Amino acid sequence: MNTKQSFAIKGDICFCKMKDQWTTMKNAYAVCETGISQGVFAQLPEQYAHFPVYDFTGKLIIPGLVDLHMHAPQYAFRGMGMDLELMDWLGQQTFPEEAKYADLSYADKAYTIFADNIKHSATSHACLFATQHRAATELLMDRMEQTGMISFVGKVNMDREAPDNLRESSAEASAQETLRWLYEIAGKYQRTKPILTPRFIPSCTPELLAKLQIIQQEYKLPVQSHLSENTGEIAFVHELCPDARFYGDAYDAYGLFGRQHPKEHTYPAIMAHCVHSTEEEIKLLRDNGVFVAHCPASNTNLSSGIAPIRRYLENHMHVGLGSDIAGGHTESILRAVCDAVQVSKLYWRLVDNGAVPLTFCEAFYLATKGGGAFFGSVGSLERGYDFSAVVLDDSSLRHPFALTIPQRLERAAYSALDAYGICAKFVSGTLLFDRTHSK
Amino acid sequence: MNTKQSFAIKGDICFCKMKDQWTTMKNAYAVCETGISQGVFAQLPEQYAHFPVYDFTGKLIIPGLVDLHMHAPQYAFRGMGMDLELMDWLGQQTFPEEAKYADLSYADKAYTIFADNIKHSATSHACLFATQHRAATELLMDRMEQTGMISFVGKVNMDREAPDNLRESSAEASAQETLRWLYEIAGKYQRTKPILTPRFIPSCTPELLAKLQIIQQEYKLPVQSHLSENTGEIAFVHELCPDARFYGDAYDAYGLFGRQHPKEHTYPAIMAHCVHSTEEEIKLLRDNGVFVAHCPASNTNLSSGIAPIRRYLENHMHVGLGSDIAGGHTESILRAVCDAVQVSKLYWRLVDNGAVPLTFCEAFYLATKGGGAFFGSVGSLERGYDFSAVVLDDSSLRHPFALTIPQRLERAAYSALDAYGICAKFVSGTLLFDRTHSK
Repeated sequence: MNTKQSFAIKGDICFCKMKDQWTTMKNAYAVCETGISQGVFAQLPEQYAHFPVYDFTGKLIIPGLVDLHMHAPQYAFRGMGMDLELMDWLGQQTFPEEAKYADLSYADKAYTIFADNIKHSATSHACLFATQHRAATELLMDRMEQTGMISFVGKVNMDREAPDNLRESSAEASAQETLRWLYEIAGKYQRTKPILTPRFIPSCTPELLAKLQIIQQEYKLPVQSHLSENTGEIAFVHELCPDARFYGDAYDAYGLFGRQHPKEHTYPAIMAHCVHSTEEEIKLLRDNGVFVAHCPASNTNLSSGIAPIRRYLENHMHVGLGSDIAGGHTESILRAVCDAVQVSKLYWRLVDNGAVPLTFCEAFYLATKGGGAFFGSVGSLERGYDFSAVVLDDSSLRHPFALTIPQRLERAAYSALDAYGICAKFVSGTLLFDRTHSK
Repeated sequence: MNTKQSFAIKGDICFCKMKDQWTTMKNAYAVCETGISQGVFAQLPEQYAHFPVYDFTGKLIIPGLVDLHMHAPQYAFRGMGMDLELMDWLGQQTFPEEAKYADLSYADKAYTIFADNIKHSATSHACLFATQHRAATELLMDRMEQTGMISFVGKVNMDREAPDNLRESSAEASAQETLRWLYEIAGKYQRTKPILTPRFIPSCTPELLAKLQIIQQEYKLPVQSHLSENTGEIAFVHELCPDARFYGDAYDAYGLFGRQHPKEHTYPAIMAHCVHSTEEEIKLLRDNGVFVAHCPASNTNLSSGIAPIRRYLENHMHVGLGSDIAGGHTESILRAVCDAVQVSKLYWRLVDNGAVPLTFCEAFYLATKGGGAFFGSVGSLERGYDFSAVVLDDSSLRHPFALTIPQRLERAAYSALDAYGICAKFVSGTLLFDRTHSK
């Protein structure tokens, strides 16, 4: 498992090199050489003639999708009890469930289901929040490594504003557990990496953020957190951090908000949501190269609002999609693509008629190259990209006239085909499963 | 086929007698006697002991769902090319496709796919627009009758503001074709009924509406049409009908808007959308007992807006759900339930924070008894209701802790389980299919 192989896959190929343009080829070959895409060809070139070919003729082939934001321990209650706003939902639904991960046998049961389902989804790359429990976080990393997917996993840090059974006892204890976690997993995985994960400003004391800053600089870790999701949350941040000019500033003060100094390269940061970011916050998101994880289903389910994604794209900011399990109700990033289009239409109609709705193609770009850039050259079948691909069998979606490949993909996404029609997945040059040829 | 039988089905039963309350029973029996529900029982009562029992132990059993608004000829392009607003979408996407139904062989191909898919959906009762083509409308009615579902099907009337190949040549021609249609199908079907279907005000001259009024009164037909969907459409109606006080008034002037006189019983009307209805229009909708077909996916996809459903419920109006294929992208009414909840949250956040979001239970009620009332005693497994039920196998949705039946149903809906997990359907006392026992 997890070795980078050489092969070609044949089918009806569809991906986006640019935000607003499809690249499609029917009955074509996508070639992978030791894990790296060699590009897409109408005929298999001579130099690859000795590669094994997986024949998916008639099926759709797309790049693996990228999920920039999800909470693995919340998968157990996805799609249930969604009648609450963020802060109540955290207190009544999320925290009680996350507390269970102190029990490793429960964590094993839940994370095994999670990992098996996400393995069989259309997602190839994901950024995951675990809980604050070190042992359960390591167990999640074991399970993710076994899937063959590429993921960043974060042990959560939280030392305030949470129930006793979920709050770490002090900033020092939280930092120490983080260091022990990093020590224990060092060198252990090929495809699973750590990411620093302060839950969000309300959960982290300044003392903890200061300690995380030191760890971040020492270990050169990327950072993931939440930003400007909900108006109640934002008001709470202002109360807790009277010195912060805006929500993001409270992270930036501790170097946890992407690039601090323009000339100094650091690992990037992902901030989920950014629904209510102010002008100043947007500027800092852009200047610091922060990745916005747009989570349209979650922002709808928790009544948070609609993020101004058109604005972010016009500002040339990094934007990817997140399922935000379990504020979002499904791990399907194809669904997130549709959701991103749909909420952008409501945003245009109800909030700002200067914000042109996203097209399906643009939203698909966000789900592939947009979020993929966080991982490097990921999210495309262009030459030089890390080779990840998903094969969709859309033959069950019958139609009375011929469709183009983008039409088929759009229909597949809007029809939730990925809930049952994924027949194979390759990640970083490794076959994860192939239901077509194993029958 | 289509005979009303006596039997019981066993499983985990879930339905709503009231808008905000689940009725659930695990490992229970729903009993059907010659097509009529006898209620739900923990043990099979003695008097039904001789009935055959379909055993769906462990599976979810819900009432068949009701789709108050869909366009059968648009099914061919569902989930595709959704980057247009209503009036452009009609001109560029819808009308060219609908024109194809002049060709019966095309209609046969397309409607056969449509009927087969809708048969295997969770929908038991539906109100369908066909096209203006009489022969193709009759073919659709044949296909729907063969499914065993209960449906109203309408030959569309449109004599203005449409391309030449789709506009009927005159009001008289449209009325004559309608009469011929009614003559040809008279007494032909057990489960498929005609419904008068003026497309919408922009497509119908006053002359045509006057003729349809005469037909409606003569044949006592229910009426279906569109109302206040999109701001551009509404402006166009005001331009075309300067005498109408509001959009609905233009139907009401011809008796095509439900009950005209409070003491005189007539068949009801369904108006799809009602996104931008004015105070006066809402009052008339309520006073006339018009059914509002709430189509949240379509209103989002076509950037129309969000209908104020909480307001309608507080006004004790009739509200059901519609897929609005193909402004809506899927025939799934379970998806429409989730969409109704989701857009109500955005409405609360972005438009009116006095409009409490719908709960999942309330939206499920709309999808069952809410829309079912149009058909009579439909949409419940209570005693006396027309017996329709759908069996969902949610065993593929694994979870690490025990779930209640409503939690399972909510998860199934949000997880698009009905795209692949429907294992049996009964409509009005007839088994349509049973994948569990036919294996």
